[in-house]
Amino acid sequence: MNHAPAPRTGRIITVTPNPALDVTYQVDGLRWGETHRVPAGTERAGGKGLNVARVAYQQGYPVLAIAPVGGPNGHQFARELASSGVPHRLVPVSAGTRRTITIVDTRSGQTSIFNEFGAALADTEWDALEAGIEREIPGAGVLVASGSLPAEADPEFFAALVRLAHSRGIPAVIDTSGPGIREAAGAGADLLKPNREELLDATGIEDPVAASRELLRLGAQRILVSAGEDGMLAFDAGAPAVFWSARLPRPLQGNPTGAGDAAVAAAAARFASGERSIRSMLASATAWSASAVLMPLAGQVSPRYRELEQEVIITERAV
Amino acid sequence: MNHAPAPRTGRIITVTPNPALDVTYQVDGLRWGETHRVPAGTERAGGKGLNVARVAYQQGYPVLAIAPVGGPNGHQFARELASSGVPHRLVPVSAGTRRTITIVDTRSGQTSIFNEFGAALADTEWDALEAGIEREIPGAGVLVASGSLPAEADPEFFAALVRLAHSRGIPAVIDTSGPGIREAAGAGADLLKPNREELLDATGIEDPVAASRELLRLGAQRILVSAGEDGMLAFDAGAPAVFWSARLPRPLQGNPTGAGDAAVAAAAARFASGERSIRSMLASATAWSASAVLMPLAGQVSPRYRELEQEVIITERAV
Repeated sequence: MNHAPAPRTGRIITVTPNPALDVTYQVDGLRWGETHRVPAGTERAGGKGLNVARVAYQQGYPVLAIAPVGGPNGHQFARELASSGVPHRLVPVSAGTRRTITIVDTRSGQTSIFNEFGAALADTEWDALEAGIEREIPGAGVLVASGSLPAEADPEFFAALVRLAHSRGIPAVIDTSGPGIREAAGAGADLLKPNREELLDATGIEDPVAASRELLRLGAQRILVSAGEDGMLAFDAGAPAVFWSARLPRPLQGNPTGAGDAAVAAAAARFASGERSIRSMLASATAWSASAVLMPLAGQVSPRYRELEQEVIITERAV
Repeated sequence: MNHAPAPRTGRIITVTPNPALDVTYQVDGLRWGETHRVPAGTERAGGKGLNVARVAYQQGYPVLAIAPVGGPNGHQFARELASSGVPHRLVPVSAGTRRTITIVDTRSGQTSIFNEFGAALADTEWDALEAGIEREIPGAGVLVASGSLPAEADPEFFAALVRLAHSRGIPAVIDTSGPGIREAAGAGADLLKPNREELLDATGIEDPVAASRELLRLGAQRILVSAGEDGMLAFDAGAPAVFWSARLPRPLQGNPTGAGDAAVAAAAARFASGERSIRSMLASATAWSASAVLMPLAGQVSPRYRELEQEVIITERAV
């Protein structure tokens, strides 16, 4: 008996140039300005590319998370990541990995986040990171780069990754903020995923439709704009006269941290599987993002994503 | 020409059974429930006994700080302590050293503190800690034990240290909270330094004078009660009919964290120098405590302590 060959899914490679050791404290009844006794904080290898890799890994896709790490926080980062099972390649650097502190008031549900800036990498360390990525490209189905850059980094980094991926025939997905968005658009990124603030910040244009069209004009192939409870918008350079909006019948309550990363994971999974329909990419991204809201930690999606995917309402609009 | 010999000052040994890696973030304009980008937190070997040792070391007294440390936080703790120059003996344990997180809003001056509980030590690790202390007793002028205990610890620990010190003819100063205060009093501690809440908690007696007399009745030799801006009270088993109150002409504005530890350092310095006048101990403790308020970090006192020591107003009162 012959089996049909499984559809070939290339590996989803995620690059996190500014990873963090995420430390989360649960406090039962916060009183600002006072002293609290709390259980030890949970430590987790974090950063947006790590969240993308975790979600895709959880959904059964082959992934590889790449990040530069250093110092004692980097040591903890590596330990936690190893125990998570997510395949990874860590590039050692001398700067210590930054930390983020999240304080969750379990009584009010209020979450306060303190994100350290990342320390600068040496030029030779950037070279080592890019060489590490290049070595993993064979077998990749998509290259994803997510998050901020450490101090003193060249925003051209994201554009260089797009060019590297394209030189090997691999699509590139970029989810960053600041000047890196324009650079990545100019390099022809296959997908950008700004939220509305990032879109405004990158283009100076208030209207998300006009701002997205500006990124298409610069060279981006597709844009997914995450708009929180309002759902998502999608733009495709191949269909310049229209765009699509997607939403669920009702918004979901929960933890929005990592919802955008789940959307990127969904889109990356589509690219890696060779499925290019923008409507199905938008439906998956909306459903995975919403089902991430249902989970307590970034980098997880609820099993409800399949059911939610059926409920997503997609509307095609003229620009 | 002959010099008079310098007065012999024995070493001030401080024991910190539940040390912490203190991580402090400075945030310019805090918005609770939101996300902030912040510079990397400063890391410091902390815990009340460490603060006592830092103050006494800064004032030129011979000190030795003893603490159990473990895990990656313990590694950072040891690195920072080594760079501080404070002489120390760290006892390796398998439980990871806890962390405290302090978030200072530099705009409002508001400080919020999150203290992790300490993880339990194994019985053999308690034995190793006590053996380490015992090895350092020769040459000590005073034994100080400060702060909380890790999980599952026996509050008898403080009483055992008092007995160990006394068996070698060394005075013992205990600054803790909870049942350890009564245990230390029962063992005949030479000095206890509760604040008013700790005094109430240990004795169940609202009035600090009556509560302090209860600790003297249990066996404590002296009590210093720190009362914040109201100054300090002192009680001496050798003069049961009176007590002393001390205050500065005006309260000082600043950071009260570590003020009590500076008071303990002042008292320990008096014990180690063989000076036993309770009035001069009270004056030093009040002045060092007030001058700690003027400094940004716990474990430091302002050079103004000499001037403040002259200004302290001491009143003897009948009980």
